[in-house]
Amino acid sequence: MKRNVYADHAATTALSDTALNAMLPYFQEKFGNPSSLYGFGQAAKADLDAARAEVAACLGAKPDEIFFTSGGTEADNWALRGVAEARGGKGRHIITSTIEHHAILHTLRYLEKYEGFQVTYLGVDSEGFVNPADVKAAIRPDTILISIMSANNEIGTIEPVTEIGAIAREAGVLFHTDAVQAVGHIPVNVDRWNVDLLSLSGHKFHGPRGVGVLYVRKPLRLPPLIHGGGQEKGRRSGTENVAGAVGLAAALKEAAAHLDGEGARLTALRDRLMDGLLSAVPRCKITGPRENRLPGTASLVFECVEGESILLRLDAMGIQSSSGSACSSASLDPSHVLLGIGLPHEIAHGSVRLSLGRENTGEDVDYMLKVIPEVIAGLRAMSPIWED
Amino acid sequence: MKRNVYADHAATTALSDTALNAMLPYFQEKFGNPSSLYGFGQAAKADLDAARAEVAACLGAKPDEIFFTSGGTEADNWALRGVAEARGGKGRHIITSTIEHHAILHTLRYLEKYEGFQVTYLGVDSEGFVNPADVKAAIRPDTILISIMSANNEIGTIEPVTEIGAIAREAGVLFHTDAVQAVGHIPVNVDRWNVDLLSLSGHKFHGPRGVGVLYVRKPLRLPPLIHGGGQEKGRRSGTENVAGAVGLAAALKEAAAHLDGEGARLTALRDRLMDGLLSAVPRCKITGPRENRLPGTASLVFECVEGESILLRLDAMGIQSSSGSACSSASLDPSHVLLGIGLPHEIAHGSVRLSLGRENTGEDVDYMLKVIPEVIAGLRAMSPIWED
Repeated sequence: MKRNVYADHAATTALSDTALNAMLPYFQEKFGNPSSLYGFGQAAKADLDAARAEVAACLGAKPDEIFFTSGGTEADNWALRGVAEARGGKGRHIITSTIEHHAILHTLRYLEKYEGFQVTYLGVDSEGFVNPADVKAAIRPDTILISIMSANNEIGTIEPVTEIGAIAREAGVLFHTDAVQAVGHIPVNVDRWNVDLLSLSGHKFHGPRGVGVLYVRKPLRLPPLIHGGGQEKGRRSGTENVAGAVGLAAALKEAAAHLDGEGARLTALRDRLMDGLLSAVPRCKITGPRENRLPGTASLVFECVEGESILLRLDAMGIQSSSGSACSSASLDPSHVLLGIGLPHEIAHGSVRLSLGRENTGEDVDYMLKVIPEVIAGLRAMSPIWED
Repeated sequence: MKRNVYADHAATTALSDTALNAMLPYFQEKFGNPSSLYGFGQAAKADLDAARAEVAACLGAKPDEIFFTSGGTEADNWALRGVAEARGGKGRHIITSTIEHHAILHTLRYLEKYEGFQVTYLGVDSEGFVNPADVKAAIRPDTILISIMSANNEIGTIEPVTEIGAIAREAGVLFHTDAVQAVGHIPVNVDRWNVDLLSLSGHKFHGPRGVGVLYVRKPLRLPPLIHGGGQEKGRRSGTENVAGAVGLAAALKEAAAHLDGEGARLTALRDRLMDGLLSAVPRCKITGPRENRLPGTASLVFECVEGESILLRLDAMGIQSSSGSACSSASLDPSHVLLGIGLPHEIAHGSVRLSLGRENTGEDVDYMLKVIPEVIAGLRAMSPIWED
């Protein structure tokens, strides 16, 4: 029987009841502007700062190291451009990896093109891991920043952030991590990770869309990306989105409270899904690692089929998934992540990501294990290049 | 009898029922990512584009000229930096006024300091009007942009945007207007105004916080401020805040539908408030003009009292207002707007803005006309510099 299985949690998630209920009072009742001096505004400021403290507690940070942004993408842009502006006089070299999110890669491309920065793009191994030794070897006297993601959005690889952070710390180089896929899903602690800057996004862990955070370790003072009225201690202007911040904090606190149990549950579901597909479908393989992998993220490539075709067939069967071979920019190139782990074009084209989350159950996995092999077989039956 | 009178609508407004009800389905039910290919995501994309079309219709623009941002501040930053990047090769001179919002002034300061731009800050007359002839005279061969606000946030002056736009058009210079205070309150039409770029913010007209719009006239292609996954046709990356966009559109449509009636109602309330205060309180005067003034915005200066003290006393009496002499950055300098219209420091210190909106009634005005003169008299009685 057909069921609906949302398996694209790495793309976005539904707002949790907890987060929605936390937000609702701020739309109409407690709508004061936190920058206003009257009590109604100051009450909103207190609630905003309480949200800030909750976020800080979840990351092992101090409240005044937490800056609310419009999302993970803005946080990534701000981190890179802010450090470039603050430290560009010391040096103009940045180290990153080839499989970062486009919010990182495209911002770095801007810095290369318009601001004269040099960027070293470190390759990754076949499972998507950055080698900390490569990071160390790439550091130059003019290196001002290392930006390596906490976990990859397409293949779920959890990078050796702690080791990279220690190397950065020892070398006196700032370390930023795009933790958009990690926060709310795996334990994150800015001190244990040795990070100076960390980006996160509310809607990846059942918080609201349009709000994120940049963590900035004191005493670093990051110059603003968005100039104006001086909100967020002059670092990020624009009337504070109190509802968004409160919702993000509530969702993060909720996710943090269930991190271990939910992580174990999703890991088990994910492994059953991946193993089931590996045994039911010939000529397919997992992308990304077995260990050090995001709990909910299953990703595979199927030979001789197009990811986009799989995705549309699965959608017809009620399963929402994504493919690294179709991107929002309508490019036909396969994902830079799949090419980055060394997959040839023709294999990378057949990629599917099934990212599980809070609402998914064992029945959902059963259903996917029934439907996906049929879909692949059906597509291959029509393929001119498939041979049984 | 004490009542609660929110008179700070120029700072922020409560979300309207219409906007909230429009948004609610997108938090949990229709939470699909518009960049996803499956039907659930594409449905969200269709709703996002419907919101875009509604906003366009309210501005006399085309839907593909509407780009959603995280608010008016980001829209202002993007407009200025985007044009600076796109046209900086042609020239590096920008014209603005001394009384723009800090989102404009601080961004221009950045462009001066870091990007080698020259900015002409046009003075305004005693009512806050920019003289179009001054704009024309300031245009140089290397001028690439004129940015003049549609209406001032502190004193309500509606600038001669149409005339300035015509001058810009004739000179072949791009024209941006920060319309954050205007949209939803006075008629706005991008063609009548001859604007190439226009910023607006949802929460100024009972839409949600954390969402705004930049209008960009075709065929201008503004380079992104926020780089990443390529959303908003590659111009503004970050997962689309569909709830925010839908809420903004609903609020704007609602405001546009009642623009004339509500404008007339607020204008009458505002004039009664200002005239009543002028006759009840000695040594006070209106800041900004009588005509060509935002309907809801009353602003005055009271001699020999501090705006911040007035504001706190009014708060104790249930009236929420703001003062140009106290700003979020905790500076003690009076507002650049009040200095810009030529007020001496000691007068500018006693400023109060009472910005009326949808919920305000004649009874609210009666109450303010009773309370404010008492508050001013009480403060003056304690003032060492006040003489009856």
